[in-house]
Amino acid sequence: MTNHEFYMELALKNAKAMKGQTDPNPLVGAVIVNDNRVVGIGAHLKAGEPHAEIHAIRMAGEAAKGGTIYVTLEPCSHYGRTGPCAVAIVEAGIERVVIATLDPNPVVSGNGVNILKDAGIEVTIGVHQEESQRMNEVFNKFIVEKKPFVTLKSGITLDGKIATYASNSKWITSEESRNDVHHLRNENMAILVGVNTVIKDNPELTARIPNGRNPIRVILDSTLKIPLESKVITDNLAETWIFTSRNYDQEKEKTLKSLGIKVFATNGLEKVDPEEVVQILGENLVSSVLIEGGGSINAAFLEKKCIDKVILYFAPKLIGGKDAPTFLEGAGIEKMADAVDLIETSIIKIGKDFKFIGYPSYSKEGIL
Amino acid sequence: MTNHEFYMELALKNAKAMKGQTDPNPLVGAVIVNDNRVVGIGAHLKAGEPHAEIHAIRMAGEAAKGGTIYVTLEPCSHYGRTGPCAVAIVEAGIERVVIATLDPNPVVSGNGVNILKDAGIEVTIGVHQEESQRMNEVFNKFIVEKKPFVTLKSGITLDGKIATYASNSKWITSEESRNDVHHLRNENMAILVGVNTVIKDNPELTARIPNGRNPIRVILDSTLKIPLESKVITDNLAETWIFTSRNYDQEKEKTLKSLGIKVFATNGLEKVDPEEVVQILGENLVSSVLIEGGGSINAAFLEKKCIDKVILYFAPKLIGGKDAPTFLEGAGIEKMADAVDLIETSIIKIGKDFKFIGYPSYSKEGIL
Repeated sequence: MTNHEFYMELALKNAKAMKGQTDPNPLVGAVIVNDNRVVGIGAHLKAGEPHAEIHAIRMAGEAAKGGTIYVTLEPCSHYGRTGPCAVAIVEAGIERVVIATLDPNPVVSGNGVNILKDAGIEVTIGVHQEESQRMNEVFNKFIVEKKPFVTLKSGITLDGKIATYASNSKWITSEESRNDVHHLRNENMAILVGVNTVIKDNPELTARIPNGRNPIRVILDSTLKIPLESKVITDNLAETWIFTSRNYDQEKEKTLKSLGIKVFATNGLEKVDPEEVVQILGENLVSSVLIEGGGSINAAFLEKKCIDKVILYFAPKLIGGKDAPTFLEGAGIEKMADAVDLIETSIIKIGKDFKFIGYPSYSKEGIL
Repeated sequence: MTNHEFYMELALKNAKAMKGQTDPNPLVGAVIVNDNRVVGIGAHLKAGEPHAEIHAIRMAGEAAKGGTIYVTLEPCSHYGRTGPCAVAIVEAGIERVVIATLDPNPVVSGNGVNILKDAGIEVTIGVHQEESQRMNEVFNKFIVEKKPFVTLKSGITLDGKIATYASNSKWITSEESRNDVHHLRNENMAILVGVNTVIKDNPELTARIPNGRNPIRVILDSTLKIPLESKVITDNLAETWIFTSRNYDQEKEKTLKSLGIKVFATNGLEKVDPEEVVQILGENLVSSVLIEGGGSINAAFLEKKCIDKVILYFAPKLIGGKDAPTFLEGAGIEKMADAVDLIETSIIKIGKDFKFIGYPSYSKEGIL
């Protein structure tokens, strides 16, 4: 590991420690080094408060002069509460800047670097770039595309099934995995399922963790057939938004609205188009969605390349069954060579289960 | 880690290093410690040569006296080329014996320990027992049950599929995984597939590695519909054994036999029963089988609890498809609570893929 990597990792660690407390701002960390000693560390703690670089510069004081600052995101060039960070770095007398990744926003990307270079500062870009970009994957997509970052989550058997041939599905995964899912729900602004899941399981779709924030419950229901006694309609534990097609039941819509449910009529004639759902959610400032659909919903979103991340909880069990549903159905892909490749894959043990994380390779350009 | 564990791990490492060269004997390692110093190490190197304990005792010489021997398998009590190891341990003046696991053969299990105890030696059993038993899993099953140890292997997408809805299956897994499979074939005495795999893929089913030993190719074919031009019939690269039902084509049988193919007529009326196949293979001294079947064959063997070990190569890709076949079909299990649990699970990265290993929990008693 080079010195650059060592100090950038420290900056990344401090940035990540603030997960969940900087919204709607991204996670950012900074480290100032002078004469091989760390003289300042900083992180962005909360929206409206100083950026990471400012905290580190204040801590370093005079020791910043002649030093090197490591920062996980390009220093900003805009005049906010504390002035542009790039200018503050110049004024502090820092001589070298090492940046993990440029600002994802194409409108300002590179502006901070230009300020630094114009002042004669040596700038290095790209140290732990991927890690920094993944750290703010939701922010990075939303700021650029104005669409939510979409995570597909499924709990499955080792043979890919989400239920037996007899539709029995309780429980596939371990308690540890199910707890982990509650954290996922807490981290996402919305959770999306199809109306058939509501009819079959009548789920609450809430984040059952202490001080958890419940996501908006998004239901795809092309005809508004959702039962009015469903928990997502009656329990008032979180907002419920229903996306329907053009041919919906208008009387039912009135009833649902009177119960405080938002109904979005989309352009689909018979089905709800995943791309339109993602578009509308973005327009309504939803920056992240967790899809917990069945095999058809999951396949529809993947087919339209609307999935940014895949999280699978594999339970170490086998059930078999030619007719047992898998988590990915639809028509499917014809040739194996055209399969959707997942990249940046990892797998960890969680309880008895294995938690897999990967990113569809088609999403690489979109997010990073 | 205790001292017991430390020394037993050394004994296990030496035992495992001899993998493939001790057949038909099991892997065994031994370490002698005296006054906190290792004074002898040994392993069984080859059938007909001394056992692990004898090598270690010879190396220790006088230093064995008063020492402790760690041995991965209960010292033998039978008079072979070098006399019973238990007697040799007594005669060497060793005072303590630590054993990982008892002899799996119920006829002699405990006899070695009795000789040691009768001589006043302190005996400890069970240090790294599971690891020692797994190391000789094939031997342990065959010696007790006279049936082969059966490994189910499949290369699958993350959604459990072995082909697209259009039956396209080349290639699912990476080159690294496919190479690993050739090692599996080399380690198993037989490889088993259904006749439909032969008809569809016309595979060689050989171990394509340097100095590799090809397994016996076992084909389940209830009507003897195998094409005579199939590679497994014509290539003479390895033996081919065909298991058929009672209602087979007798003319075809004659032709096949004239081509050097063994045909086993089983008692099944229309299908070949996995239990009978395993029984017959055992009677023919086949101690290990690798099943590389499709979803139906795999399910038939699992249903009859004829699978001892499961190895899955997960390729990080998704294909979807309600009609795309998974590696485990058949009727399937009705209730999720009745799923076949896999235990002692592990997963490692191999190329881009993930290699999963697990053991059906029902097999625990049978093997260990």
